[in-house]
Amino acid sequence: MSILVVGSIAFDSIETPRGKAEKALGGSAQYFSIATSFFNPVSLVGVVGQDFPQEHLSYLSSRKVCLKGLQILDGQTFHWAGRYDDSYSDPQTLSTHLNVFENFSPQLPESYKSLPYVFLGNIDPLLQSHVLDQMQQPRIVACDTMNFWIGRKKKELLNTLSRVDIFFINETEAKELSAEKNLVQAARKIRRMGPRILVVKRGEYGSLMFTESSVFACPAYPLSDVVDPTGAGDSFAGGFMGYLAKKGASFEEDHLRRAVVYGNTMASFAIEDYSFNRLKSIDEALIEARFKEFSSLTGF
Amino acid sequence: MSILVVGSIAFDSIETPRGKAEKALGGSAQYFSIATSFFNPVSLVGVVGQDFPQEHLSYLSSRKVCLKGLQILDGQTFHWAGRYDDSYSDPQTLSTHLNVFENFSPQLPESYKSLPYVFLGNIDPLLQSHVLDQMQQPRIVACDTMNFWIGRKKKELLNTLSRVDIFFINETEAKELSAEKNLVQAARKIRRMGPRILVVKRGEYGSLMFTESSVFACPAYPLSDVVDPTGAGDSFAGGFMGYLAKKGASFEEDHLRRAVVYGNTMASFAIEDYSFNRLKSIDEALIEARFKEFSSLTGF
Repeated sequence: MSILVVGSIAFDSIETPRGKAEKALGGSAQYFSIATSFFNPVSLVGVVGQDFPQEHLSYLSSRKVCLKGLQILDGQTFHWAGRYDDSYSDPQTLSTHLNVFENFSPQLPESYKSLPYVFLGNIDPLLQSHVLDQMQQPRIVACDTMNFWIGRKKKELLNTLSRVDIFFINETEAKELSAEKNLVQAARKIRRMGPRILVVKRGEYGSLMFTESSVFACPAYPLSDVVDPTGAGDSFAGGFMGYLAKKGASFEEDHLRRAVVYGNTMASFAIEDYSFNRLKSIDEALIEARFKEFSSLTGF
Repeated sequence: MSILVVGSIAFDSIETPRGKAEKALGGSAQYFSIATSFFNPVSLVGVVGQDFPQEHLSYLSSRKVCLKGLQILDGQTFHWAGRYDDSYSDPQTLSTHLNVFENFSPQLPESYKSLPYVFLGNIDPLLQSHVLDQMQQPRIVACDTMNFWIGRKKKELLNTLSRVDIFFINETEAKELSAEKNLVQAARKIRRMGPRILVVKRGEYGSLMFTESSVFACPAYPLSDVVDPTGAGDSFAGGFMGYLAKKGASFEEDHLRRAVVYGNTMASFAIEDYSFNRLKSIDEALIEARFKEFSSLTGF
């Protein structure tokens, strides 16, 4: 069964201490879709302008990404520009042109409404709720957000979170949302907001998953060459949800833990190059090989 | 067989966002010794002043810490004062009174010179080398340092490192020492300086161990209440070396990995209270229980 993803589709202009990429393909919905597509079909809801390359739509289709929910509007595609410093975390935004994304209102094709797995990418929490309003009892609803919404639309975000099962969030955002300095206490508080599963993303330090009765820690894959961290979080979510959907899983602890490791696996590929360049060059065998490396990375 | 430790013995005055401790017992050699003593006997080389409490020396003796190498000199014991901010990392030094530590020259009792395991705590690298000059072919030499020595005595530190098997270092210090921004590349470079085993300590993110052919990642134990991070690194080294010595280990990968987990275990206890307060209240059963929790924390 296909996974529904709603999120941004963008051109990203990226600067890092080592180089730059101009108007590269990006956006949460795309990173998620491509990462997920190695595990499971995806149904995408998003918006692009007339400038979006047709050959890339063909590529997405070739990866079993259903584009029935894609709106192609008059105007330009969302364009974000950002710069990373030496830490390769928390990019500085240089410019944001929302363009057709500004008035985006996600409309679900009829056939999407009964999909069992949902990923609400990082968009306005009002829109995230609007998507859920259109769904018929999905089995698992996962969600991402960012500091922008925590600061500006906290009430709406809390409303969305009350309807979410799995919540992906950065460490600093988790502390901001919960107003707690200690991450364990932050996690406890956020889980009380709704999500039974909380996955805290810590960049190069990996991730922590908090459930009702357990904590699971997974390191990041140790890369000697990080090119562009953009899309790491959405690739993580893509690997995570893709694995769950492929397994037909609900909330079984062992599936959730492996989903975290597949999330870290996909994120590690995403950051090895700009845009989807590395994700487009890998295959299932490479993914399995790296997944297995996490066993030797963590076993004792 | 006993482990030789050389390092500081101090009074620490600590301020954190939550509270303070005045002239609490501390210092690298003490944290190391107490953590190690749960696994293996320790032989301590260090210096204190006339103000050092006799009852604490009795406590150390009761924990099988041999004090034959302890110098008790006229004057005051080393006194450090520092303050932690909300991040509970990298304390700001408020004052340093070296006192009797200023002219410390480690002299090894005859019976110490043939000990098989050595831990060189964070002191002047010249003194670390001076200790090694007195040793007869130890099986494993481990070493710690800090940014102060990297900045001021790099040549002497490199000389020490060329004689060291296991090197414990903080993440920021590893990057500083290697002049590399990427940790994997930093580790590669530092291992070429001498140590076949490099353990990078990352505070609340746990630790990474780099060997010739592998990387091992171990998370920090997720605590909901961190009181005072002082001594975490030396308690880590204490658990690590104590376990190796108890096992009579050399460089077997499985022993080294478990040593890392015991290191994280002891560090997690140390930071639950000021000074050695928590370390003094635990026992082997509690240590084993927490060690086992790392399996459920990381298994998938």
